[in-house]
Amino acid sequence: MKKDRLQQGLDKLMEFTLTSNKEISTHLKISENLEDIAPDVGKYIIEFGYGDIYSRPGLSNQQRALVTISSLITQGTEPQMELHINTALTSGLTPEEIVEAIIQLIPYTGFPRVLNALTVAKRVFSQRDVQVTPIKVAQ
Amino acid sequence: MKKDRLQQGLDKLMEFTLTSNKEISTHLKISENLEDIAPDVGKYIIEFGYGDIYSRPGLSNQQRALVTISSLITQGTEPQMELHINTALTSGLTPEEIVEAIIQLIPYTGFPRVLNALTVAKRVFSQRDVQVTPIKVAQ
Amino acid sequence: MKKDRLQQGLDKLMEFTLTSNKEISTHLKISENLEDIAPDVGKYIIEFGYGDIYSRPGLSNQQRALVTISSLITQGTEPQMELHINTALTSGLTPEEIVEAIIQLIPYTGFPRVLNALTVAKRVFSQRDVQVTPIKVAQ
Amino acid sequence: MKKDRLQQGLDKLMEFTLTSNKEISTHLKISENLEDIAPDVGKYIIEFGYGDIYSRPGLSNQQRALVTISSLITQGTEPQMELHINTALTSGLTPEEIVEAIIQLIPYTGFPRVLNALTVAKRVFSQRDVQVTPIKVAQ
Amino acid sequence: MKKDRLQQGLDKLMEFTLTSNKEISTHLKISENLEDIAPDVGKYIIEFGYGDIYSRPGLSNQQRALVTISSLITQGTEPQMELHINTALTSGLTPEEIVEAIIQLIPYTGFPRVLNALTVAKRVFSQRDVQVTPIKVAQ
Amino acid sequence: MKKDRLQQGLDKLMEFTLTSNKEISTHLKISENLEDIAPDVGKYIIEFGYGDIYSRPGLSNQQRALVTISSLITQGTEPQMELHINTALTSGLTPEEIVEAIIQLIPYTGFPRVLNALTVAKRVFSQRDVQVTPIKVAQ
Repeated sequence: MKKDRLQQGLDKLMEFTLTSNKEISTHLKISENLEDIAPDVGKYIIEFGYGDIYSRPGLSNQQRALVTISSLITQGTEPQMELHINTALTSGLTPEEIVEAIIQLIPYTGFPRVLNALTVAKRVFSQRDVQVTPIKVAQ
Repeated sequence: MKKDRLQQGLDKLMEFTLTSNKEISTHLKISENLEDIAPDVGKYIIEFGYGDIYSRPGLSNQQRALVTISSLITQGTEPQMELHINTALTSGLTPEEIVEAIIQLIPYTGFPRVLNALTVAKRVFSQRDVQVTPIKVAQ
Repeated sequence: MKKDRLQQGLDKLMEFTLTSNKEISTHLKISENLEDIAPDVGKYIIEFGYGDIYSRPGLSNQQRALVTISSLITQGTEPQMELHINTALTSGLTPEEIVEAIIQLIPYTGFPRVLNALTVAKRVFSQRDVQVTPIKVAQ
Repeated sequence: MKKDRLQQGLDKLMEFTLTSNKEISTHLKISENLEDIAPDVGKYIIEFGYGDIYSRPGLSNQQRALVTISSLITQGTEPQMELHINTALTSGLTPEEIVEAIIQLIPYTGFPRVLNALTVAKRVFSQRDVQVTPIKVAQ
Repeated sequence: MKKDRLQQGLDKLMEFTLTSNKEISTHLKISENLEDIAPDVGKYIIEFGYGDIYSRPGLSNQQRALVTISSLITQGTEPQMELHINTALTSGLTPEEIVEAIIQLIPYTGFPRVLNALTVAKRVFSQRDVQVTPIKVAQ
Repeated sequence: MKKDRLQQGLDKLMEFTLTSNKEISTHLKISENLEDIAPDVGKYIIEFGYGDIYSRPGLSNQQRALVTISSLITQGTEPQMELHINTALTSGLTPEEIVEAIIQLIPYTGFPRVLNALTVAKRVFSQRDVQVTPIKVAQ
């Protein structure tokens, strides 16, 4: 049964990660890096995080990605923000939607968290060669 | 022009608030309460928050509500969580989607913030007589 | 297998909770309260929190309780602080050790979080009729 | 020497507290409340907080009060916010300056923390019968 | 009217930024960097942040700078801390006042945030060739 | 008397720091670095932090180290996390206990803070040539 949670988690994780030849999932690299001091944590992320939580019905992958990046931007935990702006793109959120989600947080976190998140997003878009058609409203 | 931002903000705010006879928007009550010490803050919320930010294209009202509650749950600011679980419902998010968004945050904020948010959500659902069909996955 | 994690979690949880006739575990009440909107969350707490994490070897129950309350005091999430000052006592930490742990946080969180935590601790000690022999060092 | 720090702290504290017949310093009440579980903490607040830190030259009492409330509003620790909006008034900051300091935080913390702080400030002003001449700029 | 808010914001911003030949305002660089993904955010900072909020009467520029850095130190958002220790100096706060404001936060945030802020302040003072006459009280 | 607090603090600090020929206490380096802008802060850390707080009876050095790292991981203040994972090792906590303490925080802070802390711990263990026998429970 535990194996099923692991498999379920891996299957779900794959929906959020690019698997082209050049790229290895950052999540799997995290697990590898921790193998020699905390080998179970990578499994908990996949079994509990992806197997139990992400695999639940009721929200689309894109909605889950939106919830996740909103929390990480609010916390200001940058390495995870970078990872999950990546998973958000892979889930199908457009770069424009990601940018708008960050802007939506200005009234709730203030500008500092938002500016730091936009800097991370810009870096991710550039690394993945994602084109952004910026939305310009203010005159 | 500033009047336009105010009107734009009020129009957008109305999309997020119930306006039945019995009910007065909590947002307007906030503004009233602050009238005697900080009369401009209510205007900033409507002009800047709703007029400039919420009125941007690129995300649906439901996506904006999802981003907002995710940030507030992460911060643990309860009075605003209650208000914005209300605006999330009015935007058209179902109670089940709101509950799933809260559950999605377990791997990112831990259980304490999530439990406090579920307590607030339960109270809001009850106040609005919203029926929840709970999603049960774990066996 | 999942049943085993649940049973393991329940067994571990029992080590942290008083089970006298008068008392029902707050953890089980949390699960009951959420039954009608989020029935799986109580299970995740027991399976993942107590079954997977608390049941790991390498730290004593008292060490785990110390780590837990230190995090909750730092976050300032009061309902959980109250619950886990209770579980800390049941794990065998003395009230004096709990008070000293809170005082140890002054240089790391400042006085406000510490004062709020001491207020919660005082209430818990009083509810459980726990006698405290205060440590007085400063002259 | 330690006695000097205590006396220095008490003297400084008195500059921040009303000492009319009706009123007992909240700080002293905090110390009394903790006497039976953590009798040294009240001393640390006075000796270290007021004796060492607040007594330093280089900033006026009003500047120290401004720094303090800005931090507490950002943290959202309400009981201390209430106490230090009181000490800010006693230090000579006007209610209008306190309100403006809170408003100044909108771009740095977002609206939720600011709204909660304004609610606390309004309660403190009312308890002390302080008249506020609200600054109204937005049209 | 919106143009007026923008102009008002730019005028106010100039009071907080060095404009010698060698130097371009970091704020304008932020706007430029975001031009290709979020062109409106720079405008919101100037129009709303500087035009609406910083331009309010009731607090001096130095008081606004003090409030701002106190919040950023408490949040631990370092890039913005660096920027606003710069704007604080330009507003006329002395480096000694800035250092004392950071030290004043020890009882409210603990030592870690304070040490990180002092490290940032030391770097800013060095970059701007600002001389500090350290206040030494403890014997 | 103040000299006694300083001496008491230095003595206690030495219990938490390696003093081999090759190594100078990071704490003393912090004080040196701040000597030219904030010479008293290093003294406050030793007198108040180590002299008053760490020197209290009622908890072992290892318990104090556990409380301290739990708070720093929860706050996410990395430079201090690195320092205090070092002091935790010197206090006698094993690397396995430190890793388990970090894992214990997953249910209370979520995965991001935990992953960042494990990365810091791995670096510290490597710098000190500490061997870790990883605990592997999940199958």
